[in-house]
Amino acid sequence: MRGASLSAERLTTAVDESMPLAQALLEEVRSLTADEPGVSREPWGRGEQLALDTLARAAAGLELERRTDPFGNLYLTLPGADRAAPAWLAGSHVDSVPAGGNYDGLAGVVAGVTSLAALRRAGVAPPCDTTVMAIRGEEVSAWYGGQHNGHIGSRAALGLLPPDELDSAIHSRSGRTLRSHMQEGGADPAAVGRGAPYLASARFRGYLELHIEQGPVLEARAIPVGVVSAIRGAMRGRSCRCLGAYTHSGAVPHELRSDAVMATVELVHELDREGSRVRAADGDLAVTVGKLFTDARQHALTKVPGEAEFSLDFRSRDEPTLVAMRSLTERLAREIGERRRVRFDFAPFTLQRPAAMDAAFRERLLAGCRALGIPALEMPSGAGHDAQDFAHAGFRTGMIFVRNSHGSHNPDEAMDIADFALGTRLLAWMLATR
Amino acid sequence: MRGASLSAERLTTAVDESMPLAQALLEEVRSLTADEPGVSREPWGRGEQLALDTLARAAAGLELERRTDPFGNLYLTLPGADRAAPAWLAGSHVDSVPAGGNYDGLAGVVAGVTSLAALRRAGVAPPCDTTVMAIRGEEVSAWYGGQHNGHIGSRAALGLLPPDELDSAIHSRSGRTLRSHMQEGGADPAAVGRGAPYLASARFRGYLELHIEQGPVLEARAIPVGVVSAIRGAMRGRSCRCLGAYTHSGAVPHELRSDAVMATVELVHELDREGSRVRAADGDLAVTVGKLFTDARQHALTKVPGEAEFSLDFRSRDEPTLVAMRSLTERLAREIGERRRVRFDFAPFTLQRPAAMDAAFRERLLAGCRALGIPALEMPSGAGHDAQDFAHAGFRTGMIFVRNSHGSHNPDEAMDIADFALGTRLLAWMLATR
Repeated sequence: MRGASLSAERLTTAVDESMPLAQALLEEVRSLTADEPGVSREPWGRGEQLALDTLARAAAGLELERRTDPFGNLYLTLPGADRAAPAWLAGSHVDSVPAGGNYDGLAGVVAGVTSLAALRRAGVAPPCDTTVMAIRGEEVSAWYGGQHNGHIGSRAALGLLPPDELDSAIHSRSGRTLRSHMQEGGADPAAVGRGAPYLASARFRGYLELHIEQGPVLEARAIPVGVVSAIRGAMRGRSCRCLGAYTHSGAVPHELRSDAVMATVELVHELDREGSRVRAADGDLAVTVGKLFTDARQHALTKVPGEAEFSLDFRSRDEPTLVAMRSLTERLAREIGERRRVRFDFAPFTLQRPAAMDAAFRERLLAGCRALGIPALEMPSGAGHDAQDFAHAGFRTGMIFVRNSHGSHNPDEAMDIADFALGTRLLAWMLATR
Repeated sequence: MRGASLSAERLTTAVDESMPLAQALLEEVRSLTADEPGVSREPWGRGEQLALDTLARAAAGLELERRTDPFGNLYLTLPGADRAAPAWLAGSHVDSVPAGGNYDGLAGVVAGVTSLAALRRAGVAPPCDTTVMAIRGEEVSAWYGGQHNGHIGSRAALGLLPPDELDSAIHSRSGRTLRSHMQEGGADPAAVGRGAPYLASARFRGYLELHIEQGPVLEARAIPVGVVSAIRGAMRGRSCRCLGAYTHSGAVPHELRSDAVMATVELVHELDREGSRVRAADGDLAVTVGKLFTDARQHALTKVPGEAEFSLDFRSRDEPTLVAMRSLTERLAREIGERRRVRFDFAPFTLQRPAAMDAAFRERLLAGCRALGIPALEMPSGAGHDAQDFAHAGFRTGMIFVRNSHGSHNPDEAMDIADFALGTRLLAWMLATR
């Protein structure tokens, strides 16, 4: 089958006729994993497993091949004419943040299954295998503290996961390691880092991921579909501390204080201003301090605070910008610390490298939008996605965004099913072309 | 008796011979109210009552008159030759912060009792009544949240306490009102604000208070005793909030964020800078944000924070400076709120007015230091004290500081008993002069 041989109209019809399946899958997983008003699909936990089981049952109905890797990721394959030819891989993750939205991750897997159903319905056999991957543990950061870099399922399968992350990622509630929870969830953590990667880029034509946009850009521009140009990387300080000395707020002169809040506030405000400067110079940089807190057991209205904790999250499409922000943070911390008689203590910063999407894939996705009459915007992804790990592992990678309201990582995310259908047409079109 | 008739040597000897009583009282109250490694003397609770009972027993041994006001404050009187003449009042508080130090407050009451013992020992009868007041509830801010202005015992006796503070002060652990706890502690909260003040300034020569210094100034200058020039007032925002919107830290551009932390950090940093400017212009201003925290149930490394809470504590000897800081805070909050798309919400600010010590008392205290050979420093008090309420109620007021290490409101406060003896000599000298 060549793309040209499957007309835009025939593909559009086949996808639209498969939409009831998509809606049924989204609704079934939502109700099975409900954590009102959202959903909870914990990595290697009950909710994630229920989502995978539902997808596996649907794949059985569609007579797709099913297999699982040692890490518990699920693969559903529509066999191609030449089983040895490099295969298409389309996927996304099935886990969620606690009490999150139903579409973050799951939409991409359902779009993949729906695309395979549409290809079957259109009566065409693809030249190569076309596999949908349902990925575990993309949202591990929302469930596990300690030191790790997230995206556990994809990085395990791609051979990018250092095994010791399984021991340094600590579950926020149970206090146990990710290794222990993976084992309990039926996976084989000992396989992480053992032998050749489960997924080798040479065996694949590329990796495609459909995902809801987690920001407001498409909605603000009234465009239903995005073609991703690059995925932002992140430099993170997960647990930063400023140590000063508690003392009386009235009786101790400023020149004798070691005020952890005033020092932290100066550091954070400087970093915020640097973000503005970089953006004003057409650079890309987001600076976020999501957590900032004095010690509830010790702080008081009338005490100079002796300690403050905070997190740092720098995002950029440009890796040197991220590295420069780490250096700036460390330099400011030394300078402010000395001047204000406090000490900043950063656990090691972690770097998630930015990833460019494949230029030819971007062109082809934009051509697909034109052929299918889908209004589309080429745009960067501010959020991280499994796709960036595939890009880092040498896969040619492309991403499709679907417009979504109210952001994500919350129960209010709202994707219009008509927008989802447009994104799925584009994914199916891409999988159907050579 | 005239001051001149009691020589400095005779007074010094009488005070020194009374020091075993002082040490016994300090030690007995410490052991009765121990909360290792500190002490806990909760207002209208068990520890405060044990301290008062101990002092009352000591007063019986010294044949002092004892009485209690409706609020539970204790008065111990050495009768003077003319019972109708305006009396001397010397006092401090007997309560403590939770797990606080033994000397904060108690030292002043013990110094008063010790001075009366020394006058008796010196065999002189003062011309007017000399009363030691053991005050309750100075540290209410450390035990009660809600809306109140602290210093409950003194303000109740002085007719400065609005009765509704008894209902808006809420115990941090029990959740019950101060009125309910006062009742349980045997006081009559209904008497607050009823009729004429229990203590009318016209009936007294003045109010004197000895207190440990709660800052490091005397220690840094190696001077054992301070004569207080003025007590700083405070303008406080006990529970300030910044309300923004939670959203994704990677996917949402800065110009679409409502980041509660970045807005709060800008506000606090601006207030800190204003404090530096005022001090550089020889003004008096301390700016403290003792509490600052994002919501632990909602915050995350990868979320733009939608809420931040914080406290504001401005201190100054100059009331217009305090009022200007409230105005500046409100103006900055409007300006930053509009620019950063957040809303600041301040519960009403509360003002504790600064209080100048009586000029003639200051002179007389400094003269006493010269007469007794006590090295002394004239200095302002950064912390608040009951003495400021007496000044506000029209009492001529003076304060004596005793050098103290490691600040206060903690178990590590450390007053040398030799310094305490110097301060007590000065107090006794003041009570013995006309």
